[in-house]
Amino acid sequence: MSLNVAVVGAGAVGRSVVELAGEYGHTVTAVADSSSAAIDPAGLDPEAVLDRKDREGAVGTAAPEDALAAEYDVLVEATPTTLGDAEPGFSHARAALESDRHAVLANKGPVAERYGDLMALERESEGSVLFEATVGGAIPVLSTIADFGADHITAARGVLNGTANFILSRMAAEGLGYEHVLSEAQDLGVAEADPAFDVEGTDAALKFVILANVLSQGDDEYRLDDADVEGIKDIPGSALDLAAEDGRTVRLIGEATPERVRVGPRLVPQHGALAMTGTRNIVQLETEHAGQLNVSGRGAGGPETATAVLSDVSRLE
Amino acid sequence: MSLNVAVVGAGAVGRSVVELAGEYGHTVTAVADSSSAAIDPAGLDPEAVLDRKDREGAVGTAAPEDALAAEYDVLVEATPTTLGDAEPGFSHARAALESDRHAVLANKGPVAERYGDLMALERESEGSVLFEATVGGAIPVLSTIADFGADHITAARGVLNGTANFILSRMAAEGLGYEHVLSEAQDLGVAEADPAFDVEGTDAALKFVILANVLSQGDDEYRLDDADVEGIKDIPGSALDLAAEDGRTVRLIGEATPERVRVGPRLVPQHGALAMTGTRNIVQLETEHAGQLNVSGRGAGGPETATAVLSDVSRLE
Repeated sequence: MSLNVAVVGAGAVGRSVVELAGEYGHTVTAVADSSSAAIDPAGLDPEAVLDRKDREGAVGTAAPEDALAAEYDVLVEATPTTLGDAEPGFSHARAALESDRHAVLANKGPVAERYGDLMALERESEGSVLFEATVGGAIPVLSTIADFGADHITAARGVLNGTANFILSRMAAEGLGYEHVLSEAQDLGVAEADPAFDVEGTDAALKFVILANVLSQGDDEYRLDDADVEGIKDIPGSALDLAAEDGRTVRLIGEATPERVRVGPRLVPQHGALAMTGTRNIVQLETEHAGQLNVSGRGAGGPETATAVLSDVSRLE
Repeated sequence: MSLNVAVVGAGAVGRSVVELAGEYGHTVTAVADSSSAAIDPAGLDPEAVLDRKDREGAVGTAAPEDALAAEYDVLVEATPTTLGDAEPGFSHARAALESDRHAVLANKGPVAERYGDLMALERESEGSVLFEATVGGAIPVLSTIADFGADHITAARGVLNGTANFILSRMAAEGLGYEHVLSEAQDLGVAEADPAFDVEGTDAALKFVILANVLSQGDDEYRLDDADVEGIKDIPGSALDLAAEDGRTVRLIGEATPERVRVGPRLVPQHGALAMTGTRNIVQLETEHAGQLNVSGRGAGGPETATAVLSDVSRLE
């Protein structure tokens, strides 16, 4: 079934959703960036909208909030993640659910910081909320948990920040120091000019907070403040050398259970599943009856994250 | 929602389905082995049925075919895989679908050898057919493909036979010959007394045939005969030594695309994702927009495979 999709946020993920929606059989009826919106109930021309954004810096001439009132079945929330009240992402999701339409989130804020509020809105709505794209980009972590039943999964562990993983794997492979590898990562576009969100563990922690919320199934609610978080800035190259002598290496590992969220540097076997190299992500699910299940792939990127968004959209049919 | 489940086949997988169904919220109303059946529309006592099977070699006193006519919402087909006409598994699935009930298969035969016939039955039925358990035990390969959309996956590649993988990884790690490791695997219960089905590549090929059927979405139909299959019996220990000198090792790798099925020994990087050790399985999915996605875990075992069966059952609600 073809659904009408409104996309709020025109960064890498939002743009890719607009570009790929047609391939998934859906129609984009509204796109908003921070200053404007393009709206057409009959379906926008994705190329024209994105060209205009490139040329003029705005997707259209309508006001951004008009997109929320447009005709659509599913609102895709792809504005940048914000902490605390998770605004404006939370209000965008609320607008969709309060009008009995679906919300699909790529924005981690509302799911990590206001999970209870979001679930309460969903309970009152005819619409549903899905958020596969918030955890591990293209990797189907949440749908795997849903398929298995959260009841039957005791913990989720793994690497969910590609920037920190790139830095640690380069430091180990090349024997280089943190500052050197960070600036290399910045040159390559793997790390942002302000890398704090990634290297201090915040981004990974938000994803493991979301996993803990999903695994606890409403028994407990977690926020970033509840997570025990340590970043990678203070790891000396010598620690990696020492680990290597012992057949191990260091990775920024997160863990979520129904009772706890932790993220920090951990020693892992050098050739084990958790020692991913480069920017790839991995999640290990501990299951009750079926041992450990690993899922890995590209944890970030516009088209990659857009596939998770569009899989969610297709699930709403 | 609680569904009534009839389980046909009381080997390791069938038994585990009977044992775990209650935990997934479902009720077992019938169980059949090759010589008998136990039936109770109000729900059987799983422990009593399995105890009787252990003590008397039969689950009950009814005729096995009576289970097919019992009251149930979902028939779980867990008899041994047979080739060619895939009987009696195919007829069991047909009985469920022709009476507008669901069929969940753990038996690879009907899906690998008679995919078109099975899909035709499903089209005519109010019931659905699902078969996650036929590919990779506990690993959610088919649901991941369904979530992503088969349209957006170009190939599936990986290790789907734990016995062959155990033998190859032991040969490489210990420098031992095939015959020696095979008898060790037989002592450990990892290989059967007659290991042909595993070491000749047939079991892996059936799973990749199923993947090709799923990926081609009805455009082409594959059977075991269409697969290009080579086993691991003729691999000399020296080939593994030579591979190791080059940082590589040998694994029994299968590949399915919408156009082709192949299984055979291949050189893979020694510390790469495909060089699983022991009996674990891995599948790599090549996606159109999201790079490579890896899923790995326990590819066999009673409880492991039963979780895949019961996830399918829960999906039918």
